[in-house]
Amino acid sequence: MIRVLMSGCNGKMGQMITGLVKEDEQVEIVAGIDTYTGISNTYPVFKSFADCDVEVDVVIDFSNAAALEGLLAYCISKQVPAVICSTGYSEEQLQKIKEASEKVAILKSANMSMGINLLLKLLKDAAKVLAPAGYDIELVEKHHNQKLDAPSGTALALADSINDALNNEYNYVYDRSQVRQKRDSKEIGISAVRAGTIVGEHEVIFAGTDEVIEFKHTAYSRSVFGKGAVEAAKYLAGKPAGMYDMSDVIAF
Amino acid sequence: MIRVLMSGCNGKMGQMITGLVKEDEQVEIVAGIDTYTGISNTYPVFKSFADCDVEVDVVIDFSNAAALEGLLAYCISKQVPAVICSTGYSEEQLQKIKEASEKVAILKSANMSMGINLLLKLLKDAAKVLAPAGYDIELVEKHHNQKLDAPSGTALALADSINDALNNEYNYVYDRSQVRQKRDSKEIGISAVRAGTIVGEHEVIFAGTDEVIEFKHTAYSRSVFGKGAVEAAKYLAGKPAGMYDMSDVIAF
Amino acid sequence: MIRVLMSGCNGKMGQMITGLVKEDEQVEIVAGIDTYTGISNTYPVFKSFADCDVEVDVVIDFSNAAALEGLLAYCISKQVPAVICSTGYSEEQLQKIKEASEKVAILKSANMSMGINLLLKLLKDAAKVLAPAGYDIELVEKHHNQKLDAPSGTALALADSINDALNNEYNYVYDRSQVRQKRDSKEIGISAVRAGTIVGEHEVIFAGTDEVIEFKHTAYSRSVFGKGAVEAAKYLAGKPAGMYDMSDVIAF
Amino acid sequence: MIRVLMSGCNGKMGQMITGLVKEDEQVEIVAGIDTYTGISNTYPVFKSFADCDVEVDVVIDFSNAAALEGLLAYCISKQVPAVICSTGYSEEQLQKIKEASEKVAILKSANMSMGINLLLKLLKDAAKVLAPAGYDIELVEKHHNQKLDAPSGTALALADSINDALNNEYNYVYDRSQVRQKRDSKEIGISAVRAGTIVGEHEVIFAGTDEVIEFKHTAYSRSVFGKGAVEAAKYLAGKPAGMYDMSDVIAF
Repeated sequence: MIRVLMSGCNGKMGQMITGLVKEDEQVEIVAGIDTYTGISNTYPVFKSFADCDVEVDVVIDFSNAAALEGLLAYCISKQVPAVICSTGYSEEQLQKIKEASEKVAILKSANMSMGINLLLKLLKDAAKVLAPAGYDIELVEKHHNQKLDAPSGTALALADSINDALNNEYNYVYDRSQVRQKRDSKEIGISAVRAGTIVGEHEVIFAGTDEVIEFKHTAYSRSVFGKGAVEAAKYLAGKPAGMYDMSDVIAF
Repeated sequence: MIRVLMSGCNGKMGQMITGLVKEDEQVEIVAGIDTYTGISNTYPVFKSFADCDVEVDVVIDFSNAAALEGLLAYCISKQVPAVICSTGYSEEQLQKIKEASEKVAILKSANMSMGINLLLKLLKDAAKVLAPAGYDIELVEKHHNQKLDAPSGTALALADSINDALNNEYNYVYDRSQVRQKRDSKEIGISAVRAGTIVGEHEVIFAGTDEVIEFKHTAYSRSVFGKGAVEAAKYLAGKPAGMYDMSDVIAF
Repeated sequence: MIRVLMSGCNGKMGQMITGLVKEDEQVEIVAGIDTYTGISNTYPVFKSFADCDVEVDVVIDFSNAAALEGLLAYCISKQVPAVICSTGYSEEQLQKIKEASEKVAILKSANMSMGINLLLKLLKDAAKVLAPAGYDIELVEKHHNQKLDAPSGTALALADSINDALNNEYNYVYDRSQVRQKRDSKEIGISAVRAGTIVGEHEVIFAGTDEVIEFKHTAYSRSVFGKGAVEAAKYLAGKPAGMYDMSDVIAF
Repeated sequence: MIRVLMSGCNGKMGQMITGLVKEDEQVEIVAGIDTYTGISNTYPVFKSFADCDVEVDVVIDFSNAAALEGLLAYCISKQVPAVICSTGYSEEQLQKIKEASEKVAILKSANMSMGINLLLKLLKDAAKVLAPAGYDIELVEKHHNQKLDAPSGTALALADSINDALNNEYNYVYDRSQVRQKRDSKEIGISAVRAGTIVGEHEVIFAGTDEVIEFKHTAYSRSVFGKGAVEAAKYLAGKPAGMYDMSDVIAF
C-alpha cells in the first residue's frame, strides 16, 4: 500500500480524495495536514507539516499557495515526493518549486484529469495521421452558464497539442457567421457552448470523405482532478528527484 | 396502392425516389415525366405532361421551375394533387402555385425532411416546458467544408421555431470568444462546425441543473428529402384543394 | 413568491432542494420539517408537522414512508397541496394518499425528472409520425457499474411510452448476438451500458432511410429529481383537490 | 504525382475511387483494368493486365478473386506494388499472395478504413493507461437493419485490439438483461444497435469516477474504404517487397 499524506485534507478536494481513496486497493491516506480541524477523519490530522510524525510515501497537496514553504521543507528533509495541485503561486514560488525538484520528485500539471492528459497525447498521433490525408479538424466544448471565458483553457490546450504536432500551421476560427466562404483546410474551428451546469465536455472531430473520427471527454464533477491526483501519487512514490507532469503518468 | 406520377423522373432526385418507392408497400410510380429519356425505367416516361395518359393519384415534382406551367395545368384539369419540390420559382410563379391551390391540393415546404419537420414541432413543445423552468438552449450544426453560409438555414429555422414558441424573446449568439461575460438566459447560442463531407447534423440542447435534454437530426444523404416527398405524396393523395406543407404530414 | 414547507429538509434531497430554491425567483422555503435538527438552515425547522405554525402554499416531501400520516393530516386540515417524493409506501399507505387526494391536491410520480417526463410525451408524438413511415426504433441507456438491473426502469418506461403510442405492437429485444438474422421492423432494441459512475443517460433513436433522429437525456446528479420537485410545487400551489403527476407539470 | 493503375475501375468501388482521386493532388489514375468497358473514363481502360502498356507506380485492386493471377503476374514482372482490396480469396490464393509479397510490396487489410485502423492503435494506448486505473470499457456499434450478424466484425476487432493490450484478461458481455448483478471490472460490454440504413458507427467508452472518455468512428458511405485504399497506395508506392497492412499506413 502506498501511504499518502493528504495536505489540505479538510478542504473540498481533500475530502473528495479521502472518499476516492477508500475504494482504491493500492493506496491509503495515513495522515492529513489542515489548519481547520472541524472534520473527523479516519486518519490523524496535523495543523502543520512540522507536527506530522507519521511515515508516508508521497504527499498530495490540495491546500493553497501559502502552505508551500512548509510543504517543500518537509518533502526535501524527509525525501518524500509531492503531487502539487494547489494553484495561485507567484513567480518566486514557482521558482522555489523548480529548485526543490532538484532534491525530490515533484509533479505539477495545468490540468490533473487523466482523460484530458491522455487525449493531449493521442490527439497528436491522430493529427499526424489524419491531417496530411486531408481530414478537417474541429473542436466543440460545452460548459456551464456561469463560465466567463470562451473557449475554455482546456479546449485551447487540446487545440495547441494538435497544432504542435502539425508544425503550428493551423489557425483557430471561433465564428463563421460573419463571412460567406468555404472553410480553409488549415483551420481548427473551435465552438463554445454555454448552458446549464455542464461541468465540462470537450469533443474533437477529424472529418474526411464520408468519415468522422471523434474524441470526446466528459467530466461529471471535479473529482476527475482528484482521481488524477491519486494516480499521480501512485506513479510518483519512489521516483527520483525531478520535475514531472501528468504526461509522465499517462505513459504507454 | 397510391399511384404516383414522378415529374423529373430521370434526374438525381427522381431516380433516388424511384429506388425508395420500390421498397414501399403503399405507393408505386406508374409513370414519369422527363425531357431526358436516356434512362430505362420500369414505368413509362413521357416528354411532357400533355403526353401522359396514365391514371395517377398524385404527382411528385422534382424537375425545375420551367416545368411549372405544364404541371399546374395537368393537376388542375385531371384533379390530381401535387407535391412540389422543385426550387427557384419567381414571385409570379409562386403566385400561380397559390392560385392553383384553390382548385387542387398542393404541398410545398422549405425543407422536405421528415425528421427536421418533426423537430420543428417537438422543439416548440420542449421550449414551452423547459425555458420557463430555467433551461438554457443551444444549437450546434455540422456541415461539409464546401458550405459557404453559417449557420445553416435549417439551424436558423429550428432556432426560429423555438423562439416563436417563446414570444421571440431570445437573441441568437454566434461567437463567445470576444467577450468575457456570463451567458444571458435569453440567448440561443448557435455554433457551426464545418468539416469533411458531413451532409447535415443539427443538435439542439436544453440544459438545466445537472440535466441535459438533446434533440439531434443526422442526414446521411439527400435521400431524406426524397423520403419526405414520398410520405407527403401518401398524405396528399385524395385531399381536397388547398395549400399544404410538411407540418401537415407530421400531424400526430 | 410561492411559500414551500420542505418536509425532510435536513436529508440529502432536502438540503439539495434548499440549495436549488435559493436561485429561484418564484419560490422560497419558509419552513422545514425534520426529526434531525443538527443542520442550521435559513428557515425555521420543526420536529413534526403538528409543531409547524408557519403559513405555506405547498409542501414538498422528501422524508420517508413513516412520516405519511402527519403529512396528510396537515395538508388536509390546512388545505395545502403536497408534492410527495418519498418512496417505499405500503399498499395501505398508497390507498390513504389516494383518499387524501379527494380533499387536497397531491402530486406523485414514478420519476420526478422534468426531462424524462417531457420525453415520455414527445416520444409518443415522434413514434406516431415516424414508425408508420418505416423508421426503426432503438434505445441505449448507460448507468454506473454498481447498478444491478438492466435495462433501467426508466428505459423500460420510455419504451413502454413509445409502444403505447403504437398499439403495443412492438417487442423488446435485448441481445442480437445469439442469432444471425435481420432485424424485425416491429422491434425496439434496448441496449444497456454499465460503466464508471455514470448517473443516467437515455438515448432513443428513430432511424429511416439515410436519416437518424435522436432524443437523449443525461442526468449529471440526483438534483434532476429535486429540480422536478420544485417545478411540481410551483405547478401544484393553488390547485384544487385531485391526484396529479409530472405529466401535468409538462403540459404544453 | 503517384501514378495508379485502377484494377476493377468500372465497378462501384473503382468508380468511387476514380472520383476521390480527382480531388487529390498527390495521386492520379493513369490507367484502368476492367472486363466491362461500358463506362467512359478520363484514362485508358484495358480488358486485362496483359494488355496494359501504361507505366504506373502502384496498383489498387477492387476487382474480384478471379483476377488474382493476372494481377500478381503483372506486379511481379513490372515490379509494381499492389494494394489488394478484393475479397473472397481461397486459402490457396492467400498463399499465392504471400509468396508474391516476397518479390514485390503487397498491402492487404481486413478493414481499409483509415479511421478504424487508427482507432485500433490508439485504443491500445488508451486501454493501457485507463484500465489499470479502474476505468470500465464498453462498446456500442450501430448498423443498418439488413445486417445479419451482431456484433459487427469491426466491433470485435476493436475489442480484440483493446483486450490484446490488456493481456487478454477481459471477457465480452453481449446482454445484461438476464442477470441481476453488478458489472465485473474485467468485462467489455458490447452492444449492437440495428436501425434504418446506418452504414456503420462504432463507439468505445472508458468510464471512471465522474469521467468518460469516448472514441467514436462514423462511416457515412463505403467511400471510407476507397479513401483508405488511396492512402495505402500513396504509402506503398516505392516500398520494397514485403507484406504490409493498414497499420503501416497509420504510422505516427
